[in-house]
Amino acid sequence: MKLASYKDGSRDGQLVVVSRDLGLAHYATGIATRLQQVLDDWNYLAPLLQDLSETLNHGKARHAFAFEPQLCTAPLPRAFGRTLAGAWPAHRALRAQAEGKDAPVDLKVDPVTRLCPGDWGVGACDDMLLPAGVTQPEVAAGLAAVVADLPAGVAPDLALEGIRLLMLSVDWSALPSMAGDPATSLLPFASHWAPVAVTLDEVGGGWQRGRLHANLRMHCRGEAWGDIDCAQGMYFHFGQLIADAARLRPLRAGSIVSAGPVSGLPSGLASASWVERAARMQLARREWETAAADTAVEQATTPRRRKQPTTPAPSDDHQAPAALRDGDSLRIEVFGTDGMSVFGGIEQTLLMQPGD
Amino acid sequence: MKLASYKDGSRDGQLVVVSRDLGLAHYATGIATRLQQVLDDWNYLAPLLQDLSETLNHGKARHAFAFEPQLCTAPLPRAFGRTLAGAWPAHRALRAQAEGKDAPVDLKVDPVTRLCPGDWGVGACDDMLLPAGVTQPEVAAGLAAVVADLPAGVAPDLALEGIRLLMLSVDWSALPSMAGDPATSLLPFASHWAPVAVTLDEVGGGWQRGRLHANLRMHCRGEAWGDIDCAQGMYFHFGQLIADAARLRPLRAGSIVSAGPVSGLPSGLASASWVERAARMQLARREWETAAADTAVEQATTPRRRKQPTTPAPSDDHQAPAALRDGDSLRIEVFGTDGMSVFGGIEQTLLMQPGD
Repeated sequence: MKLASYKDGSRDGQLVVVSRDLGLAHYATGIATRLQQVLDDWNYLAPLLQDLSETLNHGKARHAFAFEPQLCTAPLPRAFGRTLAGAWPAHRALRAQAEGKDAPVDLKVDPVTRLCPGDWGVGACDDMLLPAGVTQPEVAAGLAAVVADLPAGVAPDLALEGIRLLMLSVDWSALPSMAGDPATSLLPFASHWAPVAVTLDEVGGGWQRGRLHANLRMHCRGEAWGDIDCAQGMYFHFGQLIADAARLRPLRAGSIVSAGPVSGLPSGLASASWVERAARMQLARREWETAAADTAVEQATTPRRRKQPTTPAPSDDHQAPAALRDGDSLRIEVFGTDGMSVFGGIEQTLLMQPGD
Repeated sequence: MKLASYKDGSRDGQLVVVSRDLGLAHYATGIATRLQQVLDDWNYLAPLLQDLSETLNHGKARHAFAFEPQLCTAPLPRAFGRTLAGAWPAHRALRAQAEGKDAPVDLKVDPVTRLCPGDWGVGACDDMLLPAGVTQPEVAAGLAAVVADLPAGVAPDLALEGIRLLMLSVDWSALPSMAGDPATSLLPFASHWAPVAVTLDEVGGGWQRGRLHANLRMHCRGEAWGDIDCAQGMYFHFGQLIADAARLRPLRAGSIVSAGPVSGLPSGLASASWVERAARMQLARREWETAAADTAVEQATTPRRRKQPTTPAPSDDHQAPAALRDGDSLRIEVFGTDGMSVFGGIEQTLLMQPGD
């Protein structure tokens, strides 16, 4: 089933069940008012919501209404806990490379799970107002699992059984902290969440061994930033990420485990992170410059074999992208193997504080 | 007023109002069932609880009963957010010294605020069962403020106005991580909370400029570990700590801002942290050994002026303490300037997993 929270002036929103095609919605009144309530008492309440979901999907729900994503707050606006990991080694390696550092040696050993604010989730269509002083934002899209109560030290296989819902987020953080401590850098100061949270049966065959085979598409200023298979390159699966978050302490029902920025194939520019995209462009340009320089040396030393440089200059697309700026629009959506939108789209506009 | 949460099988406990002398309690039923509910709607609900508190203090509450701390869970068992800082530079400096490192240069610049799990608070009298694999626990006591909704970038002065309640915690973390990243090391895997949370008027003149003048007493295995003025040596006051936590993102009502381990005077052994206590003893011993060695050199080079070493050997109390072990008891309590217990006592027994 698909669940969303409609804005109603309360801190947690009003729980609604949304049809599989995202066309219709129905208040869950009578079953539960808030998503956390359902997570607290899942075994009793989830089947009731599932019944409502099926009635809705069959077009038989009496009080259904058209679903409007712009009326949504985050599905779980206040979570009691959230962790953020780095499940895509390519993302971490690229960032290190762009910063002129060696790739971390623990890329495939440590998912670098860290705590992350989860208590102020923002709606999918709400503007992103940058905090004063942040002029260089990083934006990254990623998948998250919402879990059941899990004991400390839970094994990855069992952890997979503890997944209640999947969600999609766009996280905003401050670039200056990139230079700082890797454990605290890039902790989001704001997170926007796609309108609906979904149970695993909504993605059908797309869910395999703790990874979601589905295409994440990201657009900035209308320009395509990537069309990425979320499962490819995800070295640590969700069971491992949850187990890592629960290594020493139990996780409570409703805790969010975020996998980190989805990273495309190393050869492409596809990325769900602005920093990673910039890094790739920088590296592509450096590679071209090196190649061009080699060609120039070759030409200088072998004058008889005159020829044009064979390495083409990077296209405009390969220029380092302009920094994100006031008024930029972003659109992020994940499409399942059936081509349907899994979580609904995140559509937002970046607003900078006057004076920045 | 003083507020506590009685265990009732629910995730958040049942809210009770406790008399100033910790003798009587009264269910808050009819006003609110959970503390988070009160924090969400403070301006409306707090005055109602305050009335009940006054009736209770005057011995006129009809359904009052004897207050039993051992029936308490944490006052706020699930918080939507928690940060942990290092408000006592002496604590950070001593730890660095004991590890053979230079003192951090930012001791009085950066309160090193980091996120910390706040979603699984444990009752004051519940046993501490160490997670498997943790053989060297660190235990530290500290004060915390529970805040109102605060905007990002709030100034320290205004942040002080946002304090709703004060609480006392004992935090358990794993020593092996000491060697690791300072930003993630010593993040507690479990926190026990003193039975009651208090409003600022409960500590009267003890609350001055964001610091609590009150004596924290800690006993381990019945032995006094310290009797420390919580205000002395607290370089960053709570307004600064809250402002730091809210630097880039808003804080939600009910967020916990912990100040970090209370540290005694540098000259004494008094400490609210096991690691700091061990560090002090280690340094005291090193100092004695240096002094003894100096005396020996002096004796060897000036044989005519024979005398006994003037530096006494450290007493047993100055030996590095044995590591915390299975069955150890701890008692932590804070006494106000009037000599009364502010938060009630934390009394716990450390249990290690079989096989450790």
